[in-house]
Amino acid sequence: MSSPNLIRESACFGGVVGYYSHHSSACKGVMRFSVYQPPQAQSSQVPVLYFLSGLTCSEENFMAKAGAQRLAAKYGLMLVVPDTSPRETGTPGEDNDWDIGTGAGFYIDATEDPWKAHYQMYSYVIEELPELINKNFAVFPDKQSIFGHSMGGHGALVCALKNPQTYKSVSAFAPIAAPIQSPWGEKAFSHYLGSNREKWRDYDASQLVLRGDFQHPILIDVGTADPYLAQGQLLPEVFEQSCMEVGQLLTLRMQQGYDHSYYFVSTFIEDHIRHHAMVLCDELS
Amino acid sequence: MSSPNLIRESACFGGVVGYYSHHSSACKGVMRFSVYQPPQAQSSQVPVLYFLSGLTCSEENFMAKAGAQRLAAKYGLMLVVPDTSPRETGTPGEDNDWDIGTGAGFYIDATEDPWKAHYQMYSYVIEELPELINKNFAVFPDKQSIFGHSMGGHGALVCALKNPQTYKSVSAFAPIAAPIQSPWGEKAFSHYLGSNREKWRDYDASQLVLRGDFQHPILIDVGTADPYLAQGQLLPEVFEQSCMEVGQLLTLRMQQGYDHSYYFVSTFIEDHIRHHAMVLCDELS
Repeated sequence: MSSPNLIRESACFGGVVGYYSHHSSACKGVMRFSVYQPPQAQSSQVPVLYFLSGLTCSEENFMAKAGAQRLAAKYGLMLVVPDTSPRETGTPGEDNDWDIGTGAGFYIDATEDPWKAHYQMYSYVIEELPELINKNFAVFPDKQSIFGHSMGGHGALVCALKNPQTYKSVSAFAPIAAPIQSPWGEKAFSHYLGSNREKWRDYDASQLVLRGDFQHPILIDVGTADPYLAQGQLLPEVFEQSCMEVGQLLTLRMQQGYDHSYYFVSTFIEDHIRHHAMVLCDELS
Repeated sequence: MSSPNLIRESACFGGVVGYYSHHSSACKGVMRFSVYQPPQAQSSQVPVLYFLSGLTCSEENFMAKAGAQRLAAKYGLMLVVPDTSPRETGTPGEDNDWDIGTGAGFYIDATEDPWKAHYQMYSYVIEELPELINKNFAVFPDKQSIFGHSMGGHGALVCALKNPQTYKSVSAFAPIAAPIQSPWGEKAFSHYLGSNREKWRDYDASQLVLRGDFQHPILIDVGTADPYLAQGQLLPEVFEQSCMEVGQLLTLRMQQGYDHSYYFVSTFIEDHIRHHAMVLCDELS
């Protein structure tokens, strides 16, 4: 495993934000990610909270706009944000559409040509990146949680529900909560996974939660003025129904007047970080 | 005076971030600005805090990255952020350099061709924009303060020191504090004000503070790892010396390891907003 290359770093709330690149064996090319190391990480290991970003985002949007570092410093959490896809892989069509290919990896392991050669974001996020982080940063490998926004909310729910022993808690902002029923999900899944819709269910949070084996309450915020809610891209009500069927504890908050932007994310980031800190930080639990 | 056109808005911390454009008579063209209206403004007038941004920024950077809305909502302050220059004015050379023309108005009223036709940012910020805000938003016209970053820190200090009755308080992040002695300032002032350096002193905070008539303590933060500090662009020590000469109260904090980015600004934004709220908000003063 190659070590991450530090591209740039900035002090922030007593810790440091760093941008990194490395060669990914899962994605067979360069991947980028950002890390916020809280001040507590200078003297001891800390829990780690992964954030998965939405369509068109890079590893920078969340670090620059969400206001999470103040809270990560308060609770002593490391933040790790991967990019949303491989880039410049040479895959035909990767830059043609904003909702497929570059910036739109959907946290899936593609099985179809031409995507399968590089678009292995699920394995990257659940295996390769944590290995790299555990080896190179002062984190407790057994104290990790995950959250995300929009496409990344889908990704966070899928990663947690498929690996309930790995992730201690999960939350999401405006997730694509039932992608096999949404236009974005149908487009991405048909490209990455092919036409057999049975295979799609393995990356659909509203299907996965029916397994009933995630042990911690799930927190989801969605803005009522989110245009993608009205378009049927998010479908939190489908996820809610699945949770009810199996008794999965869910706090679904419909936030009056909020849209899909980071102005929405930043408003409720404190509740989400606290949701994770309550589970990850011994002194709070 | 034409009313501002709302371009887009987003709910944020119980209030609303809005982006506007309007025809500016001072700059003879379209100008843009952003406003954060805190929840308190729905039911009463509130004090207003202007933020002036740095080179290359627009009216968006601060709103997206500084994390100020949480605090403006807490204290009940309206935030107003103008763009950093006129744009697409047709002025010859306006887009040639990143540190002159577009994105680099320096909050000066230009007296030289070709700039003087549109680059009247000082008058715009101290007169036209406040008139527009006072008329169209729920603010107390006699409760306004100003702060800024880098070029905008210079602008904020100049606006406040030249108008000590208008601005109740001032603060700055990494300001160009003695522009007539810095490469950025020398370049901009020679373009906008001509070769007579005597005229430059009227837009130099370290000269203006010698008048000794600003009544409130000034807060300035500068990161010790700021590359522009090492390059002699900021010169906080010159401003500090001027303050000492006339007994101007100054809290100058050299923040160990911080750079020039919004990761630095966001870390200390709470102290700055509180600095202004202590003066602007009756219940705190």
